[in-house]
Amino acid sequence: MGLKSYPSITSIPVDIDLALVVVPSSIVPKVLEECVSKNVKGVVVITAGFREAELKDGVYLQEVIRSIADRAGVKIIGPNTFGIVNLDVGLNASFTPELSKLKKGNISLIGQSGGVCHLVAYMSTIYGLGFSKIVGLGNRCNVDFADIIDYLKDDANTRVIAIHVEGVDDARRLMEAAGQASRIKPIVAYKTGRSSIADKASKTHTGSLAGNYQLYEAAFRQVGVLAVRDVEDFFDAMKALSICPIPKGNNVAIITGQAGLGIIAADACYDYGLNLAKLSEETYSTILKLLPPLSIRENPIDMGPSWSDLEKCRSIVESVISDESIHALTLCFTYTSASSNIVLELASVLKNWASIKPVTACIPAPYGYWIKEREILESHGVATYPTPSRAVKALSFLVTYRKLKAQTISKR
Amino acid sequence: MGLKSYPSITSIPVDIDLALVVVPSSIVPKVLEECVSKNVKGVVVITAGFREAELKDGVYLQEVIRSIADRAGVKIIGPNTFGIVNLDVGLNASFTPELSKLKKGNISLIGQSGGVCHLVAYMSTIYGLGFSKIVGLGNRCNVDFADIIDYLKDDANTRVIAIHVEGVDDARRLMEAAGQASRIKPIVAYKTGRSSIADKASKTHTGSLAGNYQLYEAAFRQVGVLAVRDVEDFFDAMKALSICPIPKGNNVAIITGQAGLGIIAADACYDYGLNLAKLSEETYSTILKLLPPLSIRENPIDMGPSWSDLEKCRSIVESVISDESIHALTLCFTYTSASSNIVLELASVLKNWASIKPVTACIPAPYGYWIKEREILESHGVATYPTPSRAVKALSFLVTYRKLKAQTISKR
Repeated sequence: MGLKSYPSITSIPVDIDLALVVVPSSIVPKVLEECVSKNVKGVVVITAGFREAELKDGVYLQEVIRSIADRAGVKIIGPNTFGIVNLDVGLNASFTPELSKLKKGNISLIGQSGGVCHLVAYMSTIYGLGFSKIVGLGNRCNVDFADIIDYLKDDANTRVIAIHVEGVDDARRLMEAAGQASRIKPIVAYKTGRSSIADKASKTHTGSLAGNYQLYEAAFRQVGVLAVRDVEDFFDAMKALSICPIPKGNNVAIITGQAGLGIIAADACYDYGLNLAKLSEETYSTILKLLPPLSIRENPIDMGPSWSDLEKCRSIVESVISDESIHALTLCFTYTSASSNIVLELASVLKNWASIKPVTACIPAPYGYWIKEREILESHGVATYPTPSRAVKALSFLVTYRKLKAQTISKR
Repeated sequence: MGLKSYPSITSIPVDIDLALVVVPSSIVPKVLEECVSKNVKGVVVITAGFREAELKDGVYLQEVIRSIADRAGVKIIGPNTFGIVNLDVGLNASFTPELSKLKKGNISLIGQSGGVCHLVAYMSTIYGLGFSKIVGLGNRCNVDFADIIDYLKDDANTRVIAIHVEGVDDARRLMEAAGQASRIKPIVAYKTGRSSIADKASKTHTGSLAGNYQLYEAAFRQVGVLAVRDVEDFFDAMKALSICPIPKGNNVAIITGQAGLGIIAADACYDYGLNLAKLSEETYSTILKLLPPLSIRENPIDMGPSWSDLEKCRSIVESVISDESIHALTLCFTYTSASSNIVLELASVLKNWASIKPVTACIPAPYGYWIKEREILESHGVATYPTPSRAVKALSFLVTYRKLKAQTISKR
């Protein structure tokens, strides 16, 4: 491939910061010894066949590489990992070249499963989301959740820490690190293997895990970590925390271009415990002036009949977002060729407001349409979602996070 | 635009099957009179400003056009609708040119809200789904749910009827029509305006709707209709019913390429009341032979370590799907450049099986990848979903539908 290669790491004439090891597991100890003698600072061991394997050899081999690394003070990511990605510096130390194309952003994801990391990363290429670092922990030989969380809590490029947990040996250490970091930045956690059947699947003691999950969830809450129960919630919550400010309360306004979407959003407010806000007298009278009696002029506000009048749409959104009784906003509008410029128009209205009050949006469009528009909307602080329900649910994660912070702060 | 135009419908020299009316509401009665005198068979009135408007005029105008149409035996779709699409004959009688690009399929969608119809249609361009007809009912002047359901129950191109309901005047007539149709083909219903706050939003009597929703749901169940509570569930259920057979039971097998996705799927089995099946002795011993001890070799089965060996992957899937104790299968595998041909390989294995047992899949890939592969997989009867949880939940809709059918048949 035109890349220079060497017979061993010791024969390389320059200093090495990071080594990626992908040789068969039986040779990994030898390669690690060479890394130590070459003063390599960090090692990513992609090779599988260590503690996760049913063979006795695997457990033994992992102990061997751990002791080599620990003796020399070298940190190992893995073994049995897809690797790590650091988009801040353009580093892709993983087996997946496609991860180099991810958008740079402020979320750092620590995943115990490579599959879950890839799922989340690929979702981000479809629904838009930027990452700072993605770390596949693998077998956590001598680098565990707590170590990475400690590092990320002071990392200026990381605004949100997202962790995917399957099972840990030292839950206390994880919770302590998370508790420290959550004072500084939001942490969202997704623990899989919730049920006893999934428990059986992950080969831990049958029947004990459903209870264990409750413990994880309670512990996360106690240390100020937002716990979610599905991978879409994980993604949606990290997106909201990455882009939006935390709301001052749970009074939500819904502005829609199509009444049907507004009603879905209102159903979602009910489902997720949010309050469909009463508009102030002033806002209400403004809306009455701007909208014809064809439409729903309370909350949710259906600006559908005024689509074609961008100036009116601006004014409606402006009057609602500046209403002091409103803590958060969800915007829904469906693509039509006649109104394709509405997203950019509203993005400019929300540019300043979305850093003060959280705004989520659902702007459904045919495949490939409104891609650039959605990116601009998100660069202005509006987090977009595929359905009105998920746009509202995302706000509910922010409201839950706000309560969580208030509780943990009052306890300190 | 190079299209021939006439000053009025009466001056057109040929017979007219269908007229689209988009003139201001006050002129609609006059145009309708002309349609009647021209013997037009059907009319779509896109114009708004009728019964849905707060103005008294609107209610009156709708009564006027209804009486003109009823006297002449003409059927009106609308008013206040985006229109209708019939993909079987390439007809797009709507205000949205993009709907012409939808994939032809076997689902017919009747929507009370244009916004919801567009949302579902646009979702189909992203997640893959084909339609036969989409009907925006609008104000249901003299064509209501029951009329369209009656028609679709005997329509050879419609395999699944999907209905979005906001509120109806004659719920009994809807339920009777649905009860007749559900003996012949599956109906999935999504009723919005579930909560009292959404109820307030849709301006019906405050507080009564939460109770009303329970009535709708119970009535749907009694007449054999599958009721869902969110637009993503609506979409996912219609997709499964459109592509998959109904399972004989609720024993689910999960085969995955990445253990993490398998564990998410196992969690979802627990959440949605499905049974993570025990493999037969024969299947289990086959799996033990095919997979190295690096992997989970029970259910969920992690064929990750054998990615590169397509022959092994084929054999694993074949042995599981042919296992008599398995009623349904969910497949999860994440895109990697090294394994990009796995989807086509497994599609060929499942080609015959997916018409006997339902198979759903989650095959996450970066934006734009695996588009053709997903289409081929779906053309072989495997319904794909964005996450493992939704792939499993889709199976649960099929299991629920099976129970529903069994109950309604035993009552008859």
